[in-house]
Amino acid sequence: MSRKQISEYIFNRIKEAGVDCTFGIPGDFVLPLYAAQSKSGLRTVVMTHEPSVGFAADAYARLKGLGVALVTYGAGGLNMVNATGLAYAEESPLLVISGGPENKHRSQRALLHHCVKTFDTQNNVYGEVTAANFIITDVHSAKTKIDEVFETVQTASRPGYLELPRDLMASEIEMNGAMEKTNRTTLVLPSKVDEKVLQSICQRIRNAKQPVIMAGVQISRFNLLGSVRDISEVLNIPVVSSIQGKTAFPESHPNFIGIYFGQFGDEAVREFFESCDCIIAIGVVLNEMETGGFSAKLPSENLILINNEEIRLGEEKIEYKETAISATEQFKAFLSALKANITDKAKGGLSKKFALPVLASKSERKYQPKDNLSVSYIISAINKIVDNNTVIVCDVGDCLYAGLSIKTDCFIAPGYYSSMGFGVPAGIGVQVADRNKRPIVLVGDGGFQMTGTEISTAVKEGLSPIIIVFNNASYAMLKFIDVESERSYYKLPTWDYVGFAEALGAEGHRAKICGEFDLALQKALKTNRPVLIDAIIASDDISPTLKRLTELVGKKMRSTVVS
Amino acid sequence: MSRKQISEYIFNRIKEAGVDCTFGIPGDFVLPLYAAQSKSGLRTVVMTHEPSVGFAADAYARLKGLGVALVTYGAGGLNMVNATGLAYAEESPLLVISGGPENKHRSQRALLHHCVKTFDTQNNVYGEVTAANFIITDVHSAKTKIDEVFETVQTASRPGYLELPRDLMASEIEMNGAMEKTNRTTLVLPSKVDEKVLQSICQRIRNAKQPVIMAGVQISRFNLLGSVRDISEVLNIPVVSSIQGKTAFPESHPNFIGIYFGQFGDEAVREFFESCDCIIAIGVVLNEMETGGFSAKLPSENLILINNEEIRLGEEKIEYKETAISATEQFKAFLSALKANITDKAKGGLSKKFALPVLASKSERKYQPKDNLSVSYIISAINKIVDNNTVIVCDVGDCLYAGLSIKTDCFIAPGYYSSMGFGVPAGIGVQVADRNKRPIVLVGDGGFQMTGTEISTAVKEGLSPIIIVFNNASYAMLKFIDVESERSYYKLPTWDYVGFAEALGAEGHRAKICGEFDLALQKALKTNRPVLIDAIIASDDISPTLKRLTELVGKKMRSTVVS
Repeated sequence: MSRKQISEYIFNRIKEAGVDCTFGIPGDFVLPLYAAQSKSGLRTVVMTHEPSVGFAADAYARLKGLGVALVTYGAGGLNMVNATGLAYAEESPLLVISGGPENKHRSQRALLHHCVKTFDTQNNVYGEVTAANFIITDVHSAKTKIDEVFETVQTASRPGYLELPRDLMASEIEMNGAMEKTNRTTLVLPSKVDEKVLQSICQRIRNAKQPVIMAGVQISRFNLLGSVRDISEVLNIPVVSSIQGKTAFPESHPNFIGIYFGQFGDEAVREFFESCDCIIAIGVVLNEMETGGFSAKLPSENLILINNEEIRLGEEKIEYKETAISATEQFKAFLSALKANITDKAKGGLSKKFALPVLASKSERKYQPKDNLSVSYIISAINKIVDNNTVIVCDVGDCLYAGLSIKTDCFIAPGYYSSMGFGVPAGIGVQVADRNKRPIVLVGDGGFQMTGTEISTAVKEGLSPIIIVFNNASYAMLKFIDVESERSYYKLPTWDYVGFAEALGAEGHRAKICGEFDLALQKALKTNRPVLIDAIIASDDISPTLKRLTELVGKKMRSTVVS
Repeated sequence: MSRKQISEYIFNRIKEAGVDCTFGIPGDFVLPLYAAQSKSGLRTVVMTHEPSVGFAADAYARLKGLGVALVTYGAGGLNMVNATGLAYAEESPLLVISGGPENKHRSQRALLHHCVKTFDTQNNVYGEVTAANFIITDVHSAKTKIDEVFETVQTASRPGYLELPRDLMASEIEMNGAMEKTNRTTLVLPSKVDEKVLQSICQRIRNAKQPVIMAGVQISRFNLLGSVRDISEVLNIPVVSSIQGKTAFPESHPNFIGIYFGQFGDEAVREFFESCDCIIAIGVVLNEMETGGFSAKLPSENLILINNEEIRLGEEKIEYKETAISATEQFKAFLSALKANITDKAKGGLSKKFALPVLASKSERKYQPKDNLSVSYIISAINKIVDNNTVIVCDVGDCLYAGLSIKTDCFIAPGYYSSMGFGVPAGIGVQVADRNKRPIVLVGDGGFQMTGTEISTAVKEGLSPIIIVFNNASYAMLKFIDVESERSYYKLPTWDYVGFAEALGAEGHRAKICGEFDLALQKALKTNRPVLIDAIIASDDISPTLKRLTELVGKKMRSTVVS
């Protein structure tokens, strides 16, 4: 029976998952792990601050199926709880590995630096924001625990946490032959109930006048695009995405018609969507953001919902049975069976062909180069340069709502959890995951001020994100949902963003008018350095989506703000 | 019986504690609280990123006895867990107030933005890093819970957490007459055991040949300087500080002789301290940092330890009894009684006068203006400009060890928990607490890259910190404790710190030689704007303390690094 050091085993598992790079910041409690990582042939992209480590690793995870953060104890680990919470909420397979104080000290009081209350503090905290969390305190159970955390992260697509005491990293553990791999490629329908449900769903689709597929983020998290595309193509069903599900179904596909974001979203899409008599929502969790603040019209008589928690069919809710097969696997199996039923003629596949709608195309406003720069011009200019290698990465705020209007096949944003500061580090994670991609990062000035220093990480790593700062010198979204917009705490400090980018080794351009913005974009496309564009927009210039949102949500907010 | 809105009651309590300003970043879940705060006449210093909010409020708390962070739910609250952990470890009275999702939704599943697993996630996380934490879910118990959190934070000098659902902020609660105040000014000896212990301690001091007081941080946390100074003066006992206790006893006092940091610290102080036959350690918790990595010589036969957890007298450990009077109050009472016994002649006070040692003064190296800038020159230059209004604020790394050699009466640093990124935001907290103070912030380049953007907050607030960046382009401390110093992950990205400061609206100066550093300091003293000095030092230039530390700790580290 062969033996491996714990650290070696961990890095082997990371490599087997196709991960070629971790994200982190070194610190004394994690140094032996960093040294072991170098030996394993992996490396860490060192960021400037731990919140960014979490965001970058999360973005990498969304593209590669696993992202790893390698941080020190306390000052490191406790500094990315928010980023891990985001990954949990948005089902991103982020694995946090933290060094820890020596195991041999565990019997004593925690009087070491980076310790808070007890040796369990950090693990307890991570228990609240991960799907699996362990401190390795015992060599004999180490392998099982490590395997369990990896398995959970990779199959449930949720974050996990592993803490390794500094004195156990080089301890050897026994390998049981080859690395265990769970073979779950043969998907079977778990029960007869599902067969009945399956037939009811087919029946509903068959009887529908106009069905529509609502594509959710779980389609990309669990690699289900094949099935969804087949269903859509065979029956010629139009597809909308939810906000989190943007690009889970490729926007270049002829059946894709837009994003449905309840009463906040595009009006033509909304009108069509709400006229459909059969909504097949796949991989969507009906949370606040996916439903446009619960404004989405999803009448239960028209709704078929299939996700990794349940199947809903009209008023009927079918929960997955607790078996050895996880809910996610049952969801995947069910979708696979549904696809087969619909597409396989031998199985009596549906032969109907529905019609795709022709949505009224919006008359685009014509801009002159001297016109003041606006959110809508930024979007139309970016739409002209998006290609197959572009990844649109959005932070939170109006840049996200504006970004929804960019037609792309790869879009990354914290659309549900909505943590500011995600954009710039996520752009790094995206490009580290695939060097052929070029991220265009849309970020508000508030979000940029949180983590914009990561531009220097991009410079150091030879990356080339194009970062567009929506500069309106305020927390614009808050301002718009409040009764009073001129409160001092909505004003942001003034930064010279161009000077900032240059100080960090990147290129910077300022754009106040449309012509300047075009020129800046052209320059950005000609260089392979990171580029920041300071896009100066009027303080009252917001996207149509945010306008609708603040009109509707603002009312609710106003009623609770003590003014 | 009068009634108040919950938010109004909270801001009243904050004002009653002498706090005139909170720190935070607005967000939708906390907007009603921000509005209520404006109404109450308080304001928030809006920072750029939540980790900084925690550090600034912590520093404010250390000077004022209470500091308040006002943040939004999830993306806000979960983004300052590390800062709160630091406050817990270092006994700083930081109160975190977070908005929260509507109480009326609590019976449902948590499907709102900024939510992770359940509505309790954030409160559970804060339970791990605070001394008291509550979500207000019920109007009837609101006042009791709010009072309990305030009481705990203020008396135990540890962080607390209050979460207010957005829909309860304006709810009214009943006031029971005046605001309750616990009157604890009359301190009494809680038991007879203590009287015996007291006499033993006096006896020990009386019999000592050379006693020394080791002053710890709890002296400043619990306002105990009066007693300690009296004991020191009446018996003419020399005083050293622990690393965390620096300036808990004023360094300008004639009895102060230096900092004892075990085998890592100043040699003359160490030699004298270790020759003493009676060590009176007051308000020191003997953790890793306070004991110089457990290298301090504190033989139990010579040690008298009095802190808020226990009294130690030789081998004897006396724990405080669990009574209605908290351990902290018992500690204060005991120290007060000790002081009375020693100083009050009527009570048979000690009449001995010990001698103060004359420590060998170090021959200062002479520098020429053209000499390359070095850590030791920075310290000697700062020592020349420190005055009564100076506060020395240190981040973590060699800047902290170097900072120990600056003679000052006000010093703020995360000396135990050791979180990087503390310096710049803490400088803001310090000056907001007292506008007459001028902070000199010593920060490594690694720590600066984490939170240096807060310079723009200083600009916005009209503050004037002098920020000295120890620029050696690396995580120097890690490099020095590792077997191999040239690992790629110790290299920091190159920043133009002067350009960075200017882009954020501050003044910037670069210094490579001693003369340039002097000039930069002179310019800084002449302006009331924030100033950054990019102090370029050689990559192998470290303080004598770090040299000793890496020699001793490095050995231990090297043995565990998997190379």
